[in-house]
Amino acid sequence: MSKYQHIKQSAYDANMQLPKLNLVLFTFGNVSAVDRELGVFAIKPSGVPYEDLSPEKMVIVDFDGNIIEGDLRPSSDTKTHAVLYKHWTGIGGIVHTHSTYGTAWAQSQRCIPIFGTTHADYLTVDIPCAPPMNDEMIKGNYEHETGFQIINHFESMGFDYKEVEMILVGNHAPFTWGKTADKAVHNSAVLETVAHMSYLTEQINPKAPRLQDSLIKKHFERKHGPDSYYGQ
Amino acid sequence: MSKYQHIKQSAYDANMQLPKLNLVLFTFGNVSAVDRELGVFAIKPSGVPYEDLSPEKMVIVDFDGNIIEGDLRPSSDTKTHAVLYKHWTGIGGIVHTHSTYGTAWAQSQRCIPIFGTTHADYLTVDIPCAPPMNDEMIKGNYEHETGFQIINHFESMGFDYKEVEMILVGNHAPFTWGKTADKAVHNSAVLETVAHMSYLTEQINPKAPRLQDSLIKKHFERKHGPDSYYGQ
Amino acid sequence: MSKYQHIKQSAYDANMQLPKLNLVLFTFGNVSAVDRELGVFAIKPSGVPYEDLSPEKMVIVDFDGNIIEGDLRPSSDTKTHAVLYKHWTGIGGIVHTHSTYGTAWAQSQRCIPIFGTTHADYLTVDIPCAPPMNDEMIKGNYEHETGFQIINHFESMGFDYKEVEMILVGNHAPFTWGKTADKAVHNSAVLETVAHMSYLTEQINPKAPRLQDSLIKKHFERKHGPDSYYGQ
Amino acid sequence: MSKYQHIKQSAYDANMQLPKLNLVLFTFGNVSAVDRELGVFAIKPSGVPYEDLSPEKMVIVDFDGNIIEGDLRPSSDTKTHAVLYKHWTGIGGIVHTHSTYGTAWAQSQRCIPIFGTTHADYLTVDIPCAPPMNDEMIKGNYEHETGFQIINHFESMGFDYKEVEMILVGNHAPFTWGKTADKAVHNSAVLETVAHMSYLTEQINPKAPRLQDSLIKKHFERKHGPDSYYGQ
Repeated sequence: MSKYQHIKQSAYDANMQLPKLNLVLFTFGNVSAVDRELGVFAIKPSGVPYEDLSPEKMVIVDFDGNIIEGDLRPSSDTKTHAVLYKHWTGIGGIVHTHSTYGTAWAQSQRCIPIFGTTHADYLTVDIPCAPPMNDEMIKGNYEHETGFQIINHFESMGFDYKEVEMILVGNHAPFTWGKTADKAVHNSAVLETVAHMSYLTEQINPKAPRLQDSLIKKHFERKHGPDSYYGQ
Repeated sequence: MSKYQHIKQSAYDANMQLPKLNLVLFTFGNVSAVDRELGVFAIKPSGVPYEDLSPEKMVIVDFDGNIIEGDLRPSSDTKTHAVLYKHWTGIGGIVHTHSTYGTAWAQSQRCIPIFGTTHADYLTVDIPCAPPMNDEMIKGNYEHETGFQIINHFESMGFDYKEVEMILVGNHAPFTWGKTADKAVHNSAVLETVAHMSYLTEQINPKAPRLQDSLIKKHFERKHGPDSYYGQ
Repeated sequence: MSKYQHIKQSAYDANMQLPKLNLVLFTFGNVSAVDRELGVFAIKPSGVPYEDLSPEKMVIVDFDGNIIEGDLRPSSDTKTHAVLYKHWTGIGGIVHTHSTYGTAWAQSQRCIPIFGTTHADYLTVDIPCAPPMNDEMIKGNYEHETGFQIINHFESMGFDYKEVEMILVGNHAPFTWGKTADKAVHNSAVLETVAHMSYLTEQINPKAPRLQDSLIKKHFERKHGPDSYYGQ
Repeated sequence: MSKYQHIKQSAYDANMQLPKLNLVLFTFGNVSAVDRELGVFAIKPSGVPYEDLSPEKMVIVDFDGNIIEGDLRPSSDTKTHAVLYKHWTGIGGIVHTHSTYGTAWAQSQRCIPIFGTTHADYLTVDIPCAPPMNDEMIKGNYEHETGFQIINHFESMGFDYKEVEMILVGNHAPFTWGKTADKAVHNSAVLETVAHMSYLTEQINPKAPRLQDSLIKKHFERKHGPDSYYGQ
């Protein structure tokens, strides 16, 4: 049995959640799960339908994007995952989808405004939207550069990837992450729901104000602060 | 067997309706069921996925928010339920969700206008939206104050909680109630459907008029008046 | 066995299609099926959940709204069905729902514009919207008058109920009919889909033109004309 | 066994994907699969519900629209399929649906703007919308002319049917094609998803810019270019 079996299983389980949560059409998404000790991650093979996946088909890749184990070609977005794992050392899993509402906001090149407590339960700022990449980055090592586009946007905004676990890449689609692959998938579903709610909010009231600071802080703290009292 | 088994079962059954009715993502909702004689209610434990729930996992709490029985931490919204049960003595069950359309209206800080008979079958006024809470309330005993925000808004509007069984809390999400936990869940689904229809109505005709008084009264009376003839 | 068993079965089968086609929440809809020889129709009992229905629970009513057979109270909309059966002698089944998009158009008090061939496959005019009823009709024999509101609107517009098998009642919701209860349910689903498409069409292009006459005629004729060639 | 069994099976399998992918209500769609050697294609019979289909019920038709084998009447859109097969010799399968978002764009008489990478993964231009047909074409050999409306629009735009595998026919609905019937169905689902996303994008940001050329090229090339690296 592969010594990477545990992350293959985690990546498989997390990938299989995407169609169940209605986050993907066909193969429009991928999840990876990392083993920090071994310095590798398991990721979905490219273009393989979810119904044909198995843990054994996950591909093992290192943080420079080299294939370590696996017969199939890894996701075309593999280098983006690799860059994020290499630079953000606290991440355990990464998800990329083209979920409908999240992608629509990315195509609109707008951050998703924080309008309510559903959003504040997860992050205290608008869901960031990195600007579209420039022609040089696109024509170069595209997926590699996508990772840096994300990291650079976080640095320019002063965001901490442990507090803000999601981003839109302008004209493209959402990326999310978390301590585990499962948590990263959870964040993808939250992003999609918040994207839907924020869209509706602006349609219902184009002048809807952003959430007041006290409520943002309260909801985030009760779930993530030192005195949190949400969950078990 | 616990002497609270009957309300644990009621609360469990009602909670399990939420995902079936597409009113919740993950654990974004909770239902409670009260026993007025015993002065306690059963409520969902905090952050436990619906597929892992069982009647035994429901937590028993009194009207001051004290845990009476149960190994798990109750819903983070428990104090809101407690305040409502304490002051509105005719309520048998309470539901809180972040259902998509209802939450979008709450985030828009607008009441849901009464545009049709679907709405009038349940209440004769716009679905009220309490203003967002002030900083003091939020920084204080937040969930406790949420209950008072609801009660105070009803008092200021002159509404009777037996006639209007639902409210939006501005920037937050819907709360509903009823004679039983089942009826409260029913009202949550109705609120979500009416929220969807009213949203569409304004999109189709921004000048759509509110329902005329005679039709409001007729539909409400035929379902809830002394000479009602809806149902068995 | 009841001599009305055949229409009880038809009405039951047709009613059970409504939740499958996502046309109803809870009990927000009803279907009836007529026997012209016997001068009666079978209709859903009022407020009974679809999962508890059986053919035996259908109620037999005559064209004046008198209950002929059945232990349960018939749908609160029974008199509307009776009026339509009495005056439109070619109808075999009637459906009333509060389906989301159809109801939104009814609440908007607008006819659904004919924008495409999907619509023209079924009718050659905008889906009509009868004006809201006046206070006198509402305070009087309401459901009985609802039937006349529909019939009078058809007369004033010069429509033939055999060619236009659907209507919105302003501020209320859709009614559809057909040669059989099954066909009436089919029409309800078509109305809901067309209502959704027309809504989107106006959002995408507020100046979208109505369908040209030649295409309206072509699509209707190929499905319903003397030389129709759609279907078997 | 029919010597056309293989295309009957392909057409059947592909047709059965339409309801699973939520692309059709009732019988609002059809798929065909061709055998170029035999010069015929298999197509869905007209108006037969999907649940009643079987491979044996598929109808075999030649490129002039003559029925070669089969007891049932073929889809009313058969002549459109025949024209496309006759003129576009690289096509293996064709799909026509009235899917909700695609049809709404067709009714709006607008091309679907290319706003993001989801779109660019499939084609490098806006999804074209052929103008509505003129009265003469409609009153003449309508379905035959529909095929020419599609082909003529491609010629006038300078599009290659091997690179752009989808179109909207103004006021009508989408047509898609591909090397196989399966691929054509795949394209229909992609069109519907992109139509949904583009609609939302314009709602969220009415001034959303079209995708920059470098990103269009990059995404198309990585999936379809000579050095493609998507899939296995």
